[in-house]
Amino acid sequence: MSLIAEFQTHDVRFPTSLLLDGSDAMNPDPDYSAAYLRIATDAGDGLEGHGFVFTIGRGNDVEVAAIQALAPYVLGRNAEELLADLGGVWRELQHDSQLRWLGPEKGVMHMAIGAVVNALWDLRAKREGKPLWRLLGELSPEELVDLVDFRYLSDALTRDEALAILRDAEPGRAARIARLEAEGYPAYTTTPGWLGYSDEKLARLSREAVAEGFAQIKLKVGASLDDDVRRLGIAREAVGPGIRIAVDANQRWDVAEAIDWMRRLARFDIAWIEEPTNPDDVLGHAAIARGIAPIPVATGEHGANRVMFKQFLQAGALQVLQIDYSRVAGVNENIAILLLAAKFGVPVCPHAGGVGLCEAVQHLAMFDFIAVSGTTDDRMIEFVDHLHEHFTAPVDVHDGRYWPPAAPGAGTEMHAGSIAQYEFRVTDA
Amino acid sequence: MSLIAEFQTHDVRFPTSLLLDGSDAMNPDPDYSAAYLRIATDAGDGLEGHGFVFTIGRGNDVEVAAIQALAPYVLGRNAEELLADLGGVWRELQHDSQLRWLGPEKGVMHMAIGAVVNALWDLRAKREGKPLWRLLGELSPEELVDLVDFRYLSDALTRDEALAILRDAEPGRAARIARLEAEGYPAYTTTPGWLGYSDEKLARLSREAVAEGFAQIKLKVGASLDDDVRRLGIAREAVGPGIRIAVDANQRWDVAEAIDWMRRLARFDIAWIEEPTNPDDVLGHAAIARGIAPIPVATGEHGANRVMFKQFLQAGALQVLQIDYSRVAGVNENIAILLLAAKFGVPVCPHAGGVGLCEAVQHLAMFDFIAVSGTTDDRMIEFVDHLHEHFTAPVDVHDGRYWPPAAPGAGTEMHAGSIAQYEFRVTDA
Repeated sequence: MSLIAEFQTHDVRFPTSLLLDGSDAMNPDPDYSAAYLRIATDAGDGLEGHGFVFTIGRGNDVEVAAIQALAPYVLGRNAEELLADLGGVWRELQHDSQLRWLGPEKGVMHMAIGAVVNALWDLRAKREGKPLWRLLGELSPEELVDLVDFRYLSDALTRDEALAILRDAEPGRAARIARLEAEGYPAYTTTPGWLGYSDEKLARLSREAVAEGFAQIKLKVGASLDDDVRRLGIAREAVGPGIRIAVDANQRWDVAEAIDWMRRLARFDIAWIEEPTNPDDVLGHAAIARGIAPIPVATGEHGANRVMFKQFLQAGALQVLQIDYSRVAGVNENIAILLLAAKFGVPVCPHAGGVGLCEAVQHLAMFDFIAVSGTTDDRMIEFVDHLHEHFTAPVDVHDGRYWPPAAPGAGTEMHAGSIAQYEFRVTDA
Repeated sequence: MSLIAEFQTHDVRFPTSLLLDGSDAMNPDPDYSAAYLRIATDAGDGLEGHGFVFTIGRGNDVEVAAIQALAPYVLGRNAEELLADLGGVWRELQHDSQLRWLGPEKGVMHMAIGAVVNALWDLRAKREGKPLWRLLGELSPEELVDLVDFRYLSDALTRDEALAILRDAEPGRAARIARLEAEGYPAYTTTPGWLGYSDEKLARLSREAVAEGFAQIKLKVGASLDDDVRRLGIAREAVGPGIRIAVDANQRWDVAEAIDWMRRLARFDIAWIEEPTNPDDVLGHAAIARGIAPIPVATGEHGANRVMFKQFLQAGALQVLQIDYSRVAGVNENIAILLLAAKFGVPVCPHAGGVGLCEAVQHLAMFDFIAVSGTTDDRMIEFVDHLHEHFTAPVDVHDGRYWPPAAPGAGTEMHAGSIAQYEFRVTDA
């Protein structure tokens, strides 16, 4: 028996705004940051659990405070009991009535719960000596549904329906693991498309993306229609007709504006329009999807919780579902969302980039392939080539694909030296 | 010219869980709390601005940290400029791209922005020597729409439509102010109906509510159907057939369960069912409303922002809209929500209780009557007789009505002695 003996938070911020990496129509100058958590036990095995919330700078200290407020729920408790019942841990944190008031189930406190839950998953995967994708992909359907809280989902997905989805996929798991290891998981790249880049840089990076084997690139749009038309022309010429080009408006538009704008861009053969408007606007996204069909609508990186995803699916408001590692309350809630997507037959293409999001979310996409949807058709994980060097198990992306990580854990452990170097102090502001 | 010279936060918690005041199906043991902000200028006039976020205990420290993170946006700035352009202040705080990532526009950071905005409104009202309801009720339609951010609303309400609503109501303002001062604003009481109270206490408090002139009481439901049937029978017998009884499930149910449960309670002549399910579930509320018509669905105290309220109205998912003083980003966003409700012809019955919510939200309901909806028909403000003594301008509720406060300000100033007495320190936990 061991106890959770350390619960240490860090405010880590990278000064990415200096290079305009990550600039888009709503986020002109992000400083990619992590409200970071490290937990350790007294087992003496050297294994730790790491988790984080990705933010883009100011307010990262508030997110750290929220994670710190959860220390009493974990510190001093029996590690084996916690790790054996991560569904129970999730419910305990989520249904603490006093903490729940701060959302409910959204925003700073919800993401903080995600960091704690994800740190525990990282520790569990390390103890079992497996990467998280394999750990999850080897749990039984019953164990998986026990991780999910079906409250508020039953009008769209019951526990029994989820079990049936998982059981249907079970016979093919071993074959899909073999295929994953042989072929990797499809990726697409956003590296060429940041708004702050020059036309020349856009063209060069678009050509490089094709040369590197990516079948899709993504461009930020929404600040200026003339600029978008010019940049899409440059990108389409650079990549040729066979490569998919998605666009991302980062919530810039109202409903009618989104429809008008996208009709003007349709001639460039758009793979999807991402975040056309406010991420809470289920009905608005549904109206946009009807207005610009057959261009698919993609959203989810700011999807606050499983109840919002349920409604987007019920309303036909998205055709591409983009889970995020740290927006919802951790692995458990993302499993609920993957099951909802499978129920509605909608492909999941995870949001990544930022700091550590690629390392983390690949595990969930690979798990989805192995044990939930059973396919990679129309699915791919976002890739941005930033800040991977700060992680102990950086992603392996080549030939346009993510290659399944072998290192035990959830991919969320940052080098201690990086944490120390980029730890933010109030005097830095 | 004066500068904002002080920005002081307090973690204030009242140990209400000891008496089961405020107990309901989701919140068994709330400790009513305020993440509290006091701002002061160097003007030497002794006027301060006070605002707060209401929470129910744990996590109040996180909310305080979020408010504190906003100090750099206010401290040291020109007070006259800020107070003259509170629409601009709202946009500046809301559209800070880095802070926005923490929601967007929901949860801990969104409510913190509300506390800052509301403290500035309190200061402005004190400087103008008016209670907030009168200050707002005397602004021109143009000044009012300038306070509102119509981004993401234009598919339901444009600036021009909002202007037309306000201009229609303008000629009757003076007469309605006179009527408000002569007749007060209707109230209802939740005091009898907390789940933790005995049957005897429920019956006694129900009779007392009628004797005190309230035309509606509200009972908490959702923990046990048998208990709810028994308690509604007791309450209906105590108040007689002429008094309205609303019920509140505090998000306890899934969609089908809500419909089944409410059909079992319909024979008690239910005025509304409040928060039947998760507050993010627009489509779920719409399905419940269809399933239990003509019983109205009420919700809003956990409505995260104006985009959520827009959708509830578009979908017919609520028939009674319950604004809350501190859930959204302050007075400005609540004005947007009042305008949306007026556009859709839905009555607003504010959520109150907690600590300070009655004192604060009455100003918005009275403003709605004077300048927006122009009516009190089907409208009333919740009243719970808790903790009013801690405020410098406690509500005046008698004869079943709120009487318009005369004291300058927004009603949000707590006695310094109360703050000192109930200031929470980590060692109290």
